[in-house]
Amino acid sequence: MENRFQIEIRLFMENTQLQAFIPLLYIVWSDNLLTEKEFATLQSFIDSQDWLSAEEKELLFSKITIANPPSRQDIADWKNKIEQSIQEQPAVKSIFEIAVVLSENNAVIQSLESSFVKLENDLGILGEEAIGNFKTKAKSHTVNSHTEASFDVQKITAILDGAQAPIINKVKSIISRPEFQYETSTDISVYRQKVFDWCKILAEENLGNMAYPKKYGGGENIADYFAIMETLSYHDLSLVIKFGVQFGLWGMSVQSLGTEKHYAKYLKDIGTLKLPGCFAMTETHHGSNVKGLETTATYNHENQTFTIHTPHEKAQKEYIGNAAVHGQMATVFAKLIIAGQDHGVNAFVVPLRDENAVVLKGITIGDCGHKMGLNGVDNGTIRFDQVVIPKENMLDRFASVNDKGEFESPIPSDNRRFFTMLGTLVGGRIGIPRSALAAAKSGLTIAIKYSDQRKQFGPEGGAEVPILNYRMHQRRLLIPLAKTYAVHFALQYLTQRFIDKTETEMQEIEGLAAGLKSYSTWSTTAILQECREACGGKGYLSENRIDALKNDTEIYTTFEGDNTVLMQLVAKNRLAEFRKSFGEMGSFGIINYVYENAKSAIAEKNPLAIRKIDEAHLLDSEFHLQAFQHREKTILASAARRVKKLIDNGLEVYDAFNVVQHQMIDMAEAYLDRVVLEQFQIAIAAVKDKKSKAILTKLNQLYALSQIEKNKGWYLEEGYMEAVKTKAIRKMVNQLCWDVRPDAVALVNAFAIPDSCLSSMFKHSV
Amino acid sequence: MENRFQIEIRLFMENTQLQAFIPLLYIVWSDNLLTEKEFATLQSFIDSQDWLSAEEKELLFSKITIANPPSRQDIADWKNKIEQSIQEQPAVKSIFEIAVVLSENNAVIQSLESSFVKLENDLGILGEEAIGNFKTKAKSHTVNSHTEASFDVQKITAILDGAQAPIINKVKSIISRPEFQYETSTDISVYRQKVFDWCKILAEENLGNMAYPKKYGGGENIADYFAIMETLSYHDLSLVIKFGVQFGLWGMSVQSLGTEKHYAKYLKDIGTLKLPGCFAMTETHHGSNVKGLETTATYNHENQTFTIHTPHEKAQKEYIGNAAVHGQMATVFAKLIIAGQDHGVNAFVVPLRDENAVVLKGITIGDCGHKMGLNGVDNGTIRFDQVVIPKENMLDRFASVNDKGEFESPIPSDNRRFFTMLGTLVGGRIGIPRSALAAAKSGLTIAIKYSDQRKQFGPEGGAEVPILNYRMHQRRLLIPLAKTYAVHFALQYLTQRFIDKTETEMQEIEGLAAGLKSYSTWSTTAILQECREACGGKGYLSENRIDALKNDTEIYTTFEGDNTVLMQLVAKNRLAEFRKSFGEMGSFGIINYVYENAKSAIAEKNPLAIRKIDEAHLLDSEFHLQAFQHREKTILASAARRVKKLIDNGLEVYDAFNVVQHQMIDMAEAYLDRVVLEQFQIAIAAVKDKKSKAILTKLNQLYALSQIEKNKGWYLEEGYMEAVKTKAIRKMVNQLCWDVRPDAVALVNAFAIPDSCLSSMFKHSV
Repeated sequence: MENRFQIEIRLFMENTQLQAFIPLLYIVWSDNLLTEKEFATLQSFIDSQDWLSAEEKELLFSKITIANPPSRQDIADWKNKIEQSIQEQPAVKSIFEIAVVLSENNAVIQSLESSFVKLENDLGILGEEAIGNFKTKAKSHTVNSHTEASFDVQKITAILDGAQAPIINKVKSIISRPEFQYETSTDISVYRQKVFDWCKILAEENLGNMAYPKKYGGGENIADYFAIMETLSYHDLSLVIKFGVQFGLWGMSVQSLGTEKHYAKYLKDIGTLKLPGCFAMTETHHGSNVKGLETTATYNHENQTFTIHTPHEKAQKEYIGNAAVHGQMATVFAKLIIAGQDHGVNAFVVPLRDENAVVLKGITIGDCGHKMGLNGVDNGTIRFDQVVIPKENMLDRFASVNDKGEFESPIPSDNRRFFTMLGTLVGGRIGIPRSALAAAKSGLTIAIKYSDQRKQFGPEGGAEVPILNYRMHQRRLLIPLAKTYAVHFALQYLTQRFIDKTETEMQEIEGLAAGLKSYSTWSTTAILQECREACGGKGYLSENRIDALKNDTEIYTTFEGDNTVLMQLVAKNRLAEFRKSFGEMGSFGIINYVYENAKSAIAEKNPLAIRKIDEAHLLDSEFHLQAFQHREKTILASAARRVKKLIDNGLEVYDAFNVVQHQMIDMAEAYLDRVVLEQFQIAIAAVKDKKSKAILTKLNQLYALSQIEKNKGWYLEEGYMEAVKTKAIRKMVNQLCWDVRPDAVALVNAFAIPDSCLSSMFKHSV
Repeated sequence: MENRFQIEIRLFMENTQLQAFIPLLYIVWSDNLLTEKEFATLQSFIDSQDWLSAEEKELLFSKITIANPPSRQDIADWKNKIEQSIQEQPAVKSIFEIAVVLSENNAVIQSLESSFVKLENDLGILGEEAIGNFKTKAKSHTVNSHTEASFDVQKITAILDGAQAPIINKVKSIISRPEFQYETSTDISVYRQKVFDWCKILAEENLGNMAYPKKYGGGENIADYFAIMETLSYHDLSLVIKFGVQFGLWGMSVQSLGTEKHYAKYLKDIGTLKLPGCFAMTETHHGSNVKGLETTATYNHENQTFTIHTPHEKAQKEYIGNAAVHGQMATVFAKLIIAGQDHGVNAFVVPLRDENAVVLKGITIGDCGHKMGLNGVDNGTIRFDQVVIPKENMLDRFASVNDKGEFESPIPSDNRRFFTMLGTLVGGRIGIPRSALAAAKSGLTIAIKYSDQRKQFGPEGGAEVPILNYRMHQRRLLIPLAKTYAVHFALQYLTQRFIDKTETEMQEIEGLAAGLKSYSTWSTTAILQECREACGGKGYLSENRIDALKNDTEIYTTFEGDNTVLMQLVAKNRLAEFRKSFGEMGSFGIINYVYENAKSAIAEKNPLAIRKIDEAHLLDSEFHLQAFQHREKTILASAARRVKKLIDNGLEVYDAFNVVQHQMIDMAEAYLDRVVLEQFQIAIAAVKDKKSKAILTKLNQLYALSQIEKNKGWYLEEGYMEAVKTKAIRKMVNQLCWDVRPDAVALVNAFAIPDSCLSSMFKHSV
């Protein structure tokens, strides 16, 4: 005999009108979001249905009593019923339509559409979503997106490597050798020695002296030297920095600031690493403000010597690479004092250790100890206590002491000479951003390959989906990918400008190098942050490389010049250029300039242009370049006006520049954005292979539009675009990310980073 | 007898008309920016001065021949002349005016003003700037700004600590003891053991069991427990995480998911650290998507046991804290299988090691090895090979197996039960953001104190200036400082809501916790990045703590739920709430809602309001809150409409949510921004001390306006503000930074972080 419970069930399942309530009951009990209030809502809904008998209502109420939940079997039965109804009628689209099917098209139920819809709203149920959970997901775009290269990877690699392909391949082959296996010891003395040994191997391969004159055993090839720096950066960044300190900073300082006698004496041994050395510029109290250095080099005419001295603890040399362990000599920057007169900062070669690595008398070396990264580099402090060096140790290309003991220089102004000296060292500001670029490439390769393989979540009941298919993830990795390609071409351009430089271009090139150093290193810092997060816990394990990439490059934004300081320098250069061009045009010129500027602004700001959102326009490279140029010009002109106004109003010049500091940084950034976009566009114009051109063009569009999106506040403020356009650009950025996604893995494969340099994750699926 | 050269000099110095050229000559030779072109410009200027004799022109030309520069003595003489003239006539403001003075008010020179101005322009010289370099700088605002607290530091500390002051002080005193000296060994086994020993000390001080029932030796004080987590975070973050794993994750999982028998058996030993354990949820293939866990717990009715098993390598437990070395037991999350039927994820206590730390049969432990940070925590992997545990080891608060071997649960839906289970573990999402907050406080204390002491650059000839006086530096550190104060009060609010929670509030609180966990941890990551850069090279040395703070908290954005995933969860909750409130109002309600919304939008968007820029308005807390609320409501409504539209147009639900993912994150962010602002405002309203209230109000204004500035693109797009207003806000942010600067050191001192936990930099000046 049936008990009461069984009777109820039978009644319920036989009554087709009641069946209509099944989807609601199922959702109420399976949804983890509903609360008591919603149960009450459903109860009052049932209560208000006049066509239900008191008994039927009672039965339904019993199914939604929190204290007396249905059995698991009940719930499973309901679910089956619903799924069956959907399979029979795949067109059903709402809870109500399921209810109709379950009630076998009962007329009463059919008349209830509006009450059902209201109830769904009251319960906060998105009907379609609830239904979706019962359907198969074959149609999902998100599920179906996958890796599928549209171009030939090797052709892109060839475009990236250009004429440096042979040296790049040579370096890749060297760092792939077993002896270059990563050092995993956390003991920094082990790591430092390993890095030194690696440098030795590179020197033997004639990579260290690549930029030196052939006369001294070098390769006389600056382009190759920078390509070596960049390619080595795929391997270990301590190695790159140690390499750069020895062959770049130490060697190049001798080459740039010294004369023939120094080359003959030192260059060969520096190039073979027989003579490890340092570049001792920064002091504890003076980093960015190099002019304020306090170490002294006092000339003694009687015995033709200089005495190098550290006047107080905070004037010691600090963070000096190669100092703590290996350096035998150093280029020391010190104020030259002759007969009590200060002749500004000059450079001297000072021995630190003998050949047995014993520190010489008068020299005190400290160890900077453990650092956030670059622990394979032995940074240290150096103090000089009245250290005497012979006169010939002065690096005397730009200044010297003559036979009478007088100061001599082809550049009379201390200030001017100082900046000329620094100008010859600009190479460091090319090597570092290129190294940073390589680190971004490595990080993106790891993160994008991981995200293509890593699956998490998926449509209810369907398979999980690669996380690279999610839109946010695409934004986080593919916009950086586009930017990395863009920066690549900008740094190629910088390198070429540096190699081809003439005297009159030096100031511009120094500005460009300072700017792109900041641009590239900040970009890398931001990108590696995204890469770490995109790899989740895997990104936190040291074996997966992002740890080292991130921590080693962290200091790139500081050394070779603090980025914020450099950006101000760039801005000041731009301001000076602006004033000149303004001045040269004369008063008519000024009017003309303002007029032209206004005219172009009007043309670009006409009501159609500022609202133009068709795809062809948004993807048009001319539109991009114009928008970037407009931003660059406008901020520059506005900052110039503002500084002038502040000073006219009585502010000290120094204060006025402090007030506009934020705008100065914006100005430098806008300038660099334009250079980067322009160089990417020029590089693409030269590409012949159609498929390569197509994908690079897409990346360029993504770079351009994502930068505009980032600065949309500015464009809206200026009235250069209206909201309808900035919103269309946001959508287009999303669309471009989606379109690039299938090519993403191929695009990082085109960096052709040796497997041995990448994360261990890709040895097996993740 | 005079030689030719000496005659020239004499002629030059005697000819007052020629003296007028001294400033130009000096600038040309001392400026490092001028190039050949500019020399040519100056030459043609001289050539065009008809009043000069051929001889005089020749003389002047000889002074600007690049091949034949003036002597250093010449340049020094010129400089003296100029400085003297300025001292005599302090009102001079341009190169021209100096020229007039030097020429002794020669009439010809006086008539040349316009040509001089044009020349200055042509040379790109900013006259005022050049003059400025000769003046003393006593008037400079930038130089004069300095630390000067406007309030009583201890009163702010008291406001921050609130009722938890006693426990906070106790913890601070413990971590200041000599035995808590930082471990500097890079050997992770040494570090892990040290952290374990520290935990032992904390357990002995009854800090570990603070949240457990008194019945089991606990303090039954949840508020104190979270205050302990936060305060410990000033010391070492590996310690905090190890502490959190043991007493929070492991202990609380027993307390929240188990029943009386488990409490009695385990809680006391967990609280004393006699029984170290793990929280084994995450698997290699399933992190964020916990529902997809693959470890199985198969029930065997014959012998009343469960068999725990890892079906394949990628289903192993991963990143499990306490697993690699110390854990003796673990709460293991696994799918419960009874008679072949899957009953969803449940929790089980599984022994891992015996008391001698020997790993038990069937258990395989791996070591996650070296990580980016938190190397004092022994994360590991765990694999189970058919490990049998007794039935009573099931944590059976929400589900159990009855005597007949049947599954039983008060929550019939697997889904619902699963989320209820997870809901009880929400405490982790309070401890982590509070720990992140403490790390931000530490980083800011180090960076702000450093920047107040560190001097670099200054007005020409003047003393160097603390870098905190520079506007960019202020933006980089003081906006984060304001945000950190804001987040502090939001997390206090979250903690209180959690303590006071009722069942109906749980969903909201879970959303709030997930959201603020993301908000706080992302904020900390960004802040510590600024702190590192703000400290330059010093920030890179491990001894200065930013290394550890940054790398240890790096994973906070991933664990306890990936931030991006959590933010989507928050957004989905908000969307569900929105739909409900929408629905309950009925169709009239909907119209009404839209109308009200539009009305308020109109009121706020009236042409006066959107352009209103008076100081009182910009600093008005009501304006701030309205702007935040408007953003929150508008994005929410817009996302809801957009999802619906996409689905109506035939997109799969899953795809539709992917398309709007970016907007979902914005929505969650806008919600959290509003909560944070609101709670900061409420907290300030309760402050009685006037000076404390004043400085907190200023910080609140800075937080509010800097957030609006960050989102200015959105406000402009929506027409909620016009450009004149967003520009005024940018200026006001700069001004607030400037105004807060003198209080900045006092504001970080109010965090009252023990000296022993801060950088070694402050032991001596930097």
